[in-house]
Amino acid sequence: MFEAAELGRKIAKEEFDRIAPALRTEMVEIQQNLRRADFPVILVFAGVDGAGKSESANLLNEWMDPRWIQTQVYGDPTREEIEKPEYWRYWRDLPPKGQFAIYLSAWYSRPVLDHVYGGTDRADLDATLDRINSFEKTLTDDGALVLKFWMHLSQPEQKKRLKKLERDPDQSWRVTKADWKNYKNYDRFIATAERTIMRTSTGDAPWMIVEGKDNRYRSLTVLSTIRDAVRKHLKHREAELKISAEMRKSRREAATGKGKADKAPTTVLNGQPSILDKLDMDQAVSRETYRTEIRKLRARLNALYRQSKAAGFSTLAVFEGWDAGGKGGTIRRMVSALDARDYRVLPFAAPTDEEAARHYLWRFWRHIPRAGRLTVFDRSWYGRVLVERVEHFASDEEWGRAYAEINDFEAQLVEHGSLLLKFWMNITKEEQEARFKNREVTPYKSWKLTDEDWRNREKWDEYELAVNEMVERTSTLIAPWTLVEGNDKRFARLKVVRTLCDRLQARLEG
Amino acid sequence: MFEAAELGRKIAKEEFDRIAPALRTEMVEIQQNLRRADFPVILVFAGVDGAGKSESANLLNEWMDPRWIQTQVYGDPTREEIEKPEYWRYWRDLPPKGQFAIYLSAWYSRPVLDHVYGGTDRADLDATLDRINSFEKTLTDDGALVLKFWMHLSQPEQKKRLKKLERDPDQSWRVTKADWKNYKNYDRFIATAERTIMRTSTGDAPWMIVEGKDNRYRSLTVLSTIRDAVRKHLKHREAELKISAEMRKSRREAATGKGKADKAPTTVLNGQPSILDKLDMDQAVSRETYRTEIRKLRARLNALYRQSKAAGFSTLAVFEGWDAGGKGGTIRRMVSALDARDYRVLPFAAPTDEEAARHYLWRFWRHIPRAGRLTVFDRSWYGRVLVERVEHFASDEEWGRAYAEINDFEAQLVEHGSLLLKFWMNITKEEQEARFKNREVTPYKSWKLTDEDWRNREKWDEYELAVNEMVERTSTLIAPWTLVEGNDKRFARLKVVRTLCDRLQARLEG
Repeated sequence: MFEAAELGRKIAKEEFDRIAPALRTEMVEIQQNLRRADFPVILVFAGVDGAGKSESANLLNEWMDPRWIQTQVYGDPTREEIEKPEYWRYWRDLPPKGQFAIYLSAWYSRPVLDHVYGGTDRADLDATLDRINSFEKTLTDDGALVLKFWMHLSQPEQKKRLKKLERDPDQSWRVTKADWKNYKNYDRFIATAERTIMRTSTGDAPWMIVEGKDNRYRSLTVLSTIRDAVRKHLKHREAELKISAEMRKSRREAATGKGKADKAPTTVLNGQPSILDKLDMDQAVSRETYRTEIRKLRARLNALYRQSKAAGFSTLAVFEGWDAGGKGGTIRRMVSALDARDYRVLPFAAPTDEEAARHYLWRFWRHIPRAGRLTVFDRSWYGRVLVERVEHFASDEEWGRAYAEINDFEAQLVEHGSLLLKFWMNITKEEQEARFKNREVTPYKSWKLTDEDWRNREKWDEYELAVNEMVERTSTLIAPWTLVEGNDKRFARLKVVRTLCDRLQARLEG
Repeated sequence: MFEAAELGRKIAKEEFDRIAPALRTEMVEIQQNLRRADFPVILVFAGVDGAGKSESANLLNEWMDPRWIQTQVYGDPTREEIEKPEYWRYWRDLPPKGQFAIYLSAWYSRPVLDHVYGGTDRADLDATLDRINSFEKTLTDDGALVLKFWMHLSQPEQKKRLKKLERDPDQSWRVTKADWKNYKNYDRFIATAERTIMRTSTGDAPWMIVEGKDNRYRSLTVLSTIRDAVRKHLKHREAELKISAEMRKSRREAATGKGKADKAPTTVLNGQPSILDKLDMDQAVSRETYRTEIRKLRARLNALYRQSKAAGFSTLAVFEGWDAGGKGGTIRRMVSALDARDYRVLPFAAPTDEEAARHYLWRFWRHIPRAGRLTVFDRSWYGRVLVERVEHFASDEEWGRAYAEINDFEAQLVEHGSLLLKFWMNITKEEQEARFKNREVTPYKSWKLTDEDWRNREKWDEYELAVNEMVERTSTLIAPWTLVEGNDKRFARLKVVRTLCDRLQARLEG
């Protein structure tokens, strides 16, 4: 795989000086064009120590404007990083649309080093590489341009380079013990690298192998590759957005009867009973039963939660449901059994502008709780396949692939050791109407009701289709949905708190 | 001070049950009214262990909607928190406008405990309390409502309470060894508390001492105090905003000649030579000198910077200057001597909506570098006393008090051990015109020039006044301004890089 990168390709100084000024101007131009575009450029620099990863990052920062480039390097994880899934720090640092981010090794570092030194086997390596593929696909599907450069040196060249760096008093600090350790394990390192590149070089996020021996050759290769890829992506993305806008328009027109469009593909068949239809919505409990039960459950929850704090895992509770489905009230009853310092309730409505400039999952990654804490999501990432689907804020393609993205996201949470609960607060259409009307006449509840609620209600059937499909596609063994029969508030509250208790207990006993 | 909080005041259950429902509805109402308001409510709960700090936080979360309340508790500082000034974590967690935040002890914890156990003397205690006063003043000046509750128990009552909690299997976890240690040091704790309350109870951020013996009494006292204070502040703030809007309007009209208004108070006298007038703007260096010098300086900077990384302090470099003053180009030359992984260049233009919902300093606090890193601020917190002043985005009162806020902010950075540099990139009005015209005709520079630049230029004199006053008021011994004669770009770049080198060296040798 690396033969072509050991050919000793180089560029003479005169040649470089001839080409460089124009390339430099072009780099400034594409950076300015990118600033107005709707996607970020994510560059990964990895490879053999001494082959020029940092130098390439420095050159980009020198030739372009460093104000719109961020360079990310990761050391050993901090306490907070350990308490969250591995990819949390990479998500945290994702650049907004219009900017460059340079990642030095980043998510490739651990899989490769663990395989070279840590004794992970081939299957372990492959599993971590699959995770990388999912992550990068999530980014590229969202429009990001992901380019990966593998800087290569042959073993003799690497030795020469490290020696040379060591001799230079201004550069010797770059050479660490780890570099020489890697050098000694060159063959194993290269074999791992080959497998890594082989399995993670995808059509959308390809690896470019660059010979690192000659600085000028490497610099021109890396920069002109970036230039061409950004230019191409700018054009491509523009065309894509046009198509997607047209499709969404025709979909909206179809929805309002103004035009016609293909029905979005769906696995739920019209006229067939849905998952929600199967719920026994008449279930209810008396006030007395509720009082006795909720007291017991609150004590149980409090005890279990303290054990979970001691056990050091975090809990995420997602609430979705119909408007007026009782999310707020249920959440309050649930958390009131806990200590305010241990939980956080986060309502999600329209994204802030910092959130809107990034992948839709970013705003949820940023709120993943630390060890021993509970975060309640009042609405969540499922907005992508509910409101964004029904209101055509997301294209069919976008919400269609969200099921896989969400399952992958949730798998990372659970693999990390977090407990994840998902509640759908269900009420019937009649019950919703009654609650809306009640809100209209109750002074301290009237703020809860907006015109939008009435408009959403008109789309009940479309939402029902979306809910059914959501449950079907994302209720997994590790993260099942709990459907809550919510016409009776007392029944619903008991069911939610009991479910949380049962899941905490199972997790503690498991 | 605490006599009145040992009177054994209590409220009977019937009385409580009679009052509670209405109070609860009122709490929900004020929370909804607050959501539309332009200020946050910051509650500090501190006091004797067992006197009901957590219980009060829990009750607020139970009675109001926890989605718009955040409860903050702090343990030992994390690695990242240690690497930044002490108040970084409190700034990080400041709530946006319209929300409640409950801080449990928070910034009061360390000063009190250090004095009780750590052997800090009276003067040390007072110094930390002064810092608290500045911090809270910064918040209240910005419109925040800050309310502080000291929950009190007499020593015999505290013993009873801790014993009782220990006996209750559901509550015993609340009682820690530290609680009993505090109990044994009750007298010293109370004496420290008294001084703390005495020195930090201000008109805008008052302490309320609440007897904690009876839960019902404490709950009703705390909640009704909050209710009344929020109501009053909502009214007050509305009136204040009206006045301030009118004043700004008349100021703007005066500026455009449409009306008359008092001149904003200023320490720079018209007609007198200004600080900028004293600069020798003809200074220049030849291309050859520049080439030699910049090479030497870059090597020197690189070496010094590596030493500073090893020494573990962070560096902040602020760049302000006239439009086209050469900030961007100078920053690029400066950072290109460094490794891209060690620095971050942050351009500041309009705030994001998350930033706009908080104190103007919040967006800078969030970007304070970690140990060993450099952050370059391309425009900064000085916007408050420059563009916001001249364009009347900030009221006279707001930009007028910003000098003190900024000096305090910078003192915290320097006391923490960070190195802070501030550069004013100065050019003459003629030079600016020449550069604007050059940008107009140079394709790859044209994006830099906007209509706003020409508009700003019309206000040159007002900006000059603001710059002079800024330098006069904020050039301190610990954080001096470096005025850079920038008509000659080469001279400017050398001066900036040399200053950075000299300051790094002085810091390393000091």
